[in-house]
Amino acid sequence: MPAKGVLVAVTADVVIAGGGVIGTAIAWRAAAAGLDVVLADPAYGDAASLVAAGMLAPVSEALFGEGALLRVNLLALARFPSFAAELEQVTGHRVGLRREGTLAVAFDAGDYAALTRLTAFRRSAGLEAEELDSRACRKLESFLTPDVHGGVLFPGDWSVDNRRYAAALREAAAAAGVRVVRDRVTEVLTADGADDANARVRGVALAESGEIGSDRVVVAAGSWSGAVHGLPAGLRSAVRPVKGQLLRLRHPDGMPPVLTHTIRATVRGADVYLVPRADGEVIVGATQEERGPDLTVTAGAVHDLLHDAMSVLPVTSELILAETCAGLRPGTPDNGPIVGDAGPGGLLLATGHYRNGILMSAATADAAVACLTGRAPAPEWEPFGPGRFLTRQGER
Amino acid sequence: MPAKGVLVAVTADVVIAGGGVIGTAIAWRAAAAGLDVVLADPAYGDAASLVAAGMLAPVSEALFGEGALLRVNLLALARFPSFAAELEQVTGHRVGLRREGTLAVAFDAGDYAALTRLTAFRRSAGLEAEELDSRACRKLESFLTPDVHGGVLFPGDWSVDNRRYAAALREAAAAAGVRVVRDRVTEVLTADGADDANARVRGVALAESGEIGSDRVVVAAGSWSGAVHGLPAGLRSAVRPVKGQLLRLRHPDGMPPVLTHTIRATVRGADVYLVPRADGEVIVGATQEERGPDLTVTAGAVHDLLHDAMSVLPVTSELILAETCAGLRPGTPDNGPIVGDAGPGGLLLATGHYRNGILMSAATADAAVACLTGRAPAPEWEPFGPGRFLTRQGER
Repeated sequence: MPAKGVLVAVTADVVIAGGGVIGTAIAWRAAAAGLDVVLADPAYGDAASLVAAGMLAPVSEALFGEGALLRVNLLALARFPSFAAELEQVTGHRVGLRREGTLAVAFDAGDYAALTRLTAFRRSAGLEAEELDSRACRKLESFLTPDVHGGVLFPGDWSVDNRRYAAALREAAAAAGVRVVRDRVTEVLTADGADDANARVRGVALAESGEIGSDRVVVAAGSWSGAVHGLPAGLRSAVRPVKGQLLRLRHPDGMPPVLTHTIRATVRGADVYLVPRADGEVIVGATQEERGPDLTVTAGAVHDLLHDAMSVLPVTSELILAETCAGLRPGTPDNGPIVGDAGPGGLLLATGHYRNGILMSAATADAAVACLTGRAPAPEWEPFGPGRFLTRQGER
Repeated sequence: MPAKGVLVAVTADVVIAGGGVIGTAIAWRAAAAGLDVVLADPAYGDAASLVAAGMLAPVSEALFGEGALLRVNLLALARFPSFAAELEQVTGHRVGLRREGTLAVAFDAGDYAALTRLTAFRRSAGLEAEELDSRACRKLESFLTPDVHGGVLFPGDWSVDNRRYAAALREAAAAAGVRVVRDRVTEVLTADGADDANARVRGVALAESGEIGSDRVVVAAGSWSGAVHGLPAGLRSAVRPVKGQLLRLRHPDGMPPVLTHTIRATVRGADVYLVPRADGEVIVGATQEERGPDLTVTAGAVHDLLHDAMSVLPVTSELILAETCAGLRPGTPDNGPIVGDAGPGGLLLATGHYRNGILMSAATADAAVACLTGRAPAPEWEPFGPGRFLTRQGER
């Protein structure tokens, strides 16, 4: 990998700003489609994607009434397994896709009523769900607290090991010929003299390594997308960081796995989830905090996550606290991603995936490569173009 | 520093096994007294001393009736400031001695009654104590929970930054000419042919670097002391590891200090303490676990420490969780240290300091150097010689 400040490419078919799972998935698929791709990221391999539970869950409470977002999530979920299978086949590495499903549990009748409403909504979207009483929940997960009132098993809500997945994407991208520049895209450059309506991109400026010439640029910089100059008015302020803190627990040597399914619960009004990994880790997440670009791990958040995890699965107190971490999800005003062409011509956005970056990565790569190669993305993406956040000259 | 496996010294006046605060303090003072010192530690700079709050508190509930231990603790406390001052003067580095004192708080009348008994005991030992009502406690520490029933200020219970202190000791030892071998002492070697009564040490065997010849050996290997072969029967099993987990919290940028005094409290039957550092850290400790040589950080312990800290000082939830760590205190059957000459001749033990290694380090160095130079240690050490754990041939 070239050192910072050494420019490896002066031109490319497409430059991708951002090397999280979204940018890397696009880079891989674009290179596989025959494009000459340069990916620029100052901290490649160290994106928000590392701080994730990797849940592939298309429906949550937040989605009541958000039909368009539900449809694109379902598209993403349907696409994920074949994408992951190809990734595993290309790289020879497992990405830790787990198909045991998700068990959502309720602690009292009120929680259970809310869960029942969600279940009806999910069924209306064609998703499987199986109601379980307390005893049946504990039969599925024997370490579950006896305080559980009941639950619902969602067999189609899977999970993937986000770190293995991201690493495999980087490997596949490299094998497909993607060149990586460890530098930050500061600006999307447009052709001189073009007026607003006909402007086209001509490349990007990097913080330390000069410029890369390209007539196609993809901004996939997650919560940092707004820091890229040259984006149309309105788009730079459309993405904000939403801080999430999570924990990585690990089984001590010799302790058999305490968890098989992903568990979701609401404890003291806060959602908590526990996601098992094949290698003996259990991810506990996650806070949602509007604190700007703050990546500190706080005592209160770690306390609450541990408390909530132990409320659901008391045996987690015996696990090793292997890591505490914080990441920034790219949130948008309507909670939907921003995927599609934006003016100037040749500029593509693929950002704002909020809590669903891992889930949506495969489908987003498909949509982006369609745009880059002159085809139309799947119709589910239509409501999520950058146009909805564009402001006219003079507006804020 | 020489690489592992490269022996720097074939002979020395004294070899010290163990480079925690005890071994390093002895090494410094012995070298300053003119002895040629080699200190052997496979992980020099990475001892249990790093996982400590650095409280200089000579009296706790455990000491009721343990008059001899109290006396040696008081000796250690009296010696500490001049020792630290000399260390700061020699190295030019501050060791973070804080003289604000310790505020012990009680949450209910029962806690307060226990605290009152402790206070009477401390006064009988000549230590200052000032009873405070809830309002007065909160006047001293404005972030203290309003739930506090009352407290006692112990102005003479100070603290030191254990990491700065240990680093300064290493620097002072190096400046005094102490040579360090990054290897483990596996055995204390005795002179061939000597019978039990007249045996004398002739050096040590190292795990990877051969032998060092020396007619004086100090075993200061903390909870690993029992792993050294060649110690008299009974002594190898006298020291056991007592696991302690603690947290290092840090103020976010711009937040003024939330704590001035060390705070001690009992929450749900468990002692918790919060110790402020000059550099904006707050140490929260500590668990006491009999789990053998286990250094894992567990979810349950971190939860409990955070919970207890937030119960005492709610604002700690806003602090950054900078580090979680676990260390092994060298415990003994009677909770007292093991300091003094043991057979064979020339063998000195300085271990078993349990929870008070930092506090006792200066006085232990004095006692050890007295033994090494043929003088008598202070009489307070008399009850803490290795002899009390010796077993006769045939006994277990």
